[in-house]
Amino acid sequence: MNAIHPAQDQGRAIPAGFIDALRERFGERVSTAAAVREHHGRDESPYPAMPPDAVVYALSTEDVAWVAAHCNAHRVPLIPYGAGSSLEGHLLAVRGGVSLDLSRMNHIVALHPEDFTVTVQAGVTRKQLNDEIRDTGLFFPIDPGADASLGGMAATRASGTNAVRYGTMRENVVSLKVVTADGRIINTAGRARKSSAGYDLTRVFVGSEGTLGIITEVTVRLYPQPEAISAAVCNFSDLGAAVRSVIEIIQMGVPVARVEFMDAAAVRATNAYSKLELKESPLLLFEFHGSPAGVREQAETVQEITRSHGGEDFSWAERPEDRNRLWTARHNAYFAGLQLRPGCRSSTTDVCVPISRLAECVTETASDLDNASFPYTILGHVGDGNFHVLMLLDPDDPAEFQESEALNRRLVERALGMEGTCTGEHGVGLHKIAFMEAEHGRDALDLMAAMKQAFDPRDILNPGKIIPAAGHAKAGGFSE
Amino acid sequence: MNAIHPAQDQGRAIPAGFIDALRERFGERVSTAAAVREHHGRDESPYPAMPPDAVVYALSTEDVAWVAAHCNAHRVPLIPYGAGSSLEGHLLAVRGGVSLDLSRMNHIVALHPEDFTVTVQAGVTRKQLNDEIRDTGLFFPIDPGADASLGGMAATRASGTNAVRYGTMRENVVSLKVVTADGRIINTAGRARKSSAGYDLTRVFVGSEGTLGIITEVTVRLYPQPEAISAAVCNFSDLGAAVRSVIEIIQMGVPVARVEFMDAAAVRATNAYSKLELKESPLLLFEFHGSPAGVREQAETVQEITRSHGGEDFSWAERPEDRNRLWTARHNAYFAGLQLRPGCRSSTTDVCVPISRLAECVTETASDLDNASFPYTILGHVGDGNFHVLMLLDPDDPAEFQESEALNRRLVERALGMEGTCTGEHGVGLHKIAFMEAEHGRDALDLMAAMKQAFDPRDILNPGKIIPAAGHAKAGGFSE
Repeated sequence: MNAIHPAQDQGRAIPAGFIDALRERFGERVSTAAAVREHHGRDESPYPAMPPDAVVYALSTEDVAWVAAHCNAHRVPLIPYGAGSSLEGHLLAVRGGVSLDLSRMNHIVALHPEDFTVTVQAGVTRKQLNDEIRDTGLFFPIDPGADASLGGMAATRASGTNAVRYGTMRENVVSLKVVTADGRIINTAGRARKSSAGYDLTRVFVGSEGTLGIITEVTVRLYPQPEAISAAVCNFSDLGAAVRSVIEIIQMGVPVARVEFMDAAAVRATNAYSKLELKESPLLLFEFHGSPAGVREQAETVQEITRSHGGEDFSWAERPEDRNRLWTARHNAYFAGLQLRPGCRSSTTDVCVPISRLAECVTETASDLDNASFPYTILGHVGDGNFHVLMLLDPDDPAEFQESEALNRRLVERALGMEGTCTGEHGVGLHKIAFMEAEHGRDALDLMAAMKQAFDPRDILNPGKIIPAAGHAKAGGFSE
Repeated sequence: MNAIHPAQDQGRAIPAGFIDALRERFGERVSTAAAVREHHGRDESPYPAMPPDAVVYALSTEDVAWVAAHCNAHRVPLIPYGAGSSLEGHLLAVRGGVSLDLSRMNHIVALHPEDFTVTVQAGVTRKQLNDEIRDTGLFFPIDPGADASLGGMAATRASGTNAVRYGTMRENVVSLKVVTADGRIINTAGRARKSSAGYDLTRVFVGSEGTLGIITEVTVRLYPQPEAISAAVCNFSDLGAAVRSVIEIIQMGVPVARVEFMDAAAVRATNAYSKLELKESPLLLFEFHGSPAGVREQAETVQEITRSHGGEDFSWAERPEDRNRLWTARHNAYFAGLQLRPGCRSSTTDVCVPISRLAECVTETASDLDNASFPYTILGHVGDGNFHVLMLLDPDDPAEFQESEALNRRLVERALGMEGTCTGEHGVGLHKIAFMEAEHGRDALDLMAAMKQAFDPRDILNPGKIIPAAGHAKAGGFSE
């Protein structure tokens, strides 16, 4: 267990009376029950829970501001919590403190269909948002798989299957309402499509993982529901050919809405879990959006390209119900993978490389993983150059965890050597801290640390995440 | 003259030996000649020149790092200079110091056509870039009119006529090489299409106007040259109908590449300057990119919409030479406008509002301007909700400048009241400083000031820009 336990800093204790004051203000909305704390001290990362000292359920930005001011005054850590779906240890209370649960802040604040924007509270999830705006003819495309909260998606700079066409949270957040470390409330921007009025505070907070401020409202861009949609599956005999097809599709400028890769193991797992009968060889899953003529044109171009790389004929999912079944299965690939090894705990990687290096990166990674002592699947948003390895580990065998960490390290080094990044969409949390200096260099990391110091001088906001602590740059629990 | 002269801070003097040290290192690449200093102390803003004490021509990132370290050690202001085309007083040496001319850093560093990226030195201009990459079948779409440098475009978060389809510098900068205030060299990101690895340093520097660091290399996204392009002009009897057409086109999700508005005065000026025979009523200028079928489809949809708002039949520019003539004329609209009043000095505004408020904002602004004692034109990138007023002022009449400033102030207040911004693409420089608090609020501005302090603790980088100086938030030269 110790081997996969991140370093815990025991230096801080909650001051006397601190929790009483929370209770006085929030009553039943404060919990110190072990089960609640345990639930809020974990996420979908390979780490065991590190519970906070208390959980507070916020209902408003003013609640958040009050808690921030209180924590700041008493130097108590404060960790915003949305849907709990992050993957890299973002939510673990490595120094204790308060987990601030925003899931009850789940209202649409303002819908402006004529401007293609909607403002929501941070706890609204992406599925809820799309349900609530369906009648407008618009949709919100960013789709990380999990039914994450918009606040969490902004905080981790999430993306997912539609990013190849619609961009990531970086491109799609218009503005944010944010509570600062000392409890002030700011808006990062207006609702204009573009602005050159000073520093881009919106993009400062997008991807800051709760370490610079607490996002309480998110304004995002919406898009017209496409007139026509079609989806298709294309099987390949080998992984390299599938990836090379994607490279050519992107280079041709075809505006595919989604192009996802699954290796044979991921397909096998998905068939078993989602009761599908996909052919169990490496495959690409496409979705095309546009006018009926545009969709036909895109699909023809893509089919020509895949054929020239040895891809089989497209298998189409024309009816909405077939298409939904297919994409639900893709989204469940994570849970499907877990079933390949009942009782396992997973570790998921997340590198992203320039598309020209993708085939090489995926192929070398598969070779490396073929020697692992545990099962794995590879899948990813290959149109972005982003792919994941799901490693299925025996939770009682620290050696397997160590082995998976070594594989992850080699994968990150491979990606960085190709001008890529250690995380395309999951974020840093605890699990990628050890790679921040290798990716950014000491001087750039110093600037990030200076930003953290400027925004959160008492280091109360999700402390111990993103920025390696001075003196132990290898935080993140790697026992090397 | 005083009336249009920004407040100058006389508190600093260049230390003895400082310029000698520059000469020792850079020889002939240091100039203190009055004409050179004068040239580097002005831009296309309404302000008269405020020359630096010296100009240094950099040839490399290492040159820039040396100058930054030298300036930082001696607390001497340092102002990066690219093509000199900024519009809001960005380049004026309000506290003296060194103007660092990057125009000789004009080499392509690395072209990766297979990844749709190119890395260039900061002094490369957008026209030079497109000339140099023409054979690859790719192009760089961001087009602010002037042949600006890529470093300057990144520093001001520029956009222009293509932004409605391709985004602004915010979306199109992949990474930057930046020299920090104390002379360190960092890269803000790798070349992957997306990353969640920590704070978005790229977007911190994009739009920071040389106040947080000096951009020496820019990596941007490229796009495939469209298979088919067509351009068309559509006249309207009134301004409101033209703008309402654009709103509906955007709301229908038609992926127009460009949609520009010109009022009758702007058309008249353009006809005279560019020897065209456009009908002199409010007009929209469209460009469509895509496959031949896609372009046809877009044009048909757009023509239907404009007709329903009383627009006349499209007048097409099918041949490349006609199209180029039309867009060159559009780009020269600024210079054309100046000819409406020979010998004038111009002041250009730059607000951006949510598209649903655009017709109202443009119409109210035109009414306000109709009472002005000087001529004006309105034109803009209306697909983004962004428009400009060109006010043609008698340079010897301070009363006209005061009147234009009052009109500008009312326009900004109108835009902010509509959830817009005081600058869509020109940047803050000196001319918009007075509006920063109204737009962002004191607390958000405090965060920007904290970033400035964190990145440039000695306040040497383009001091006096973006952030209102403490105690005189009305910097920017407004004599109110």
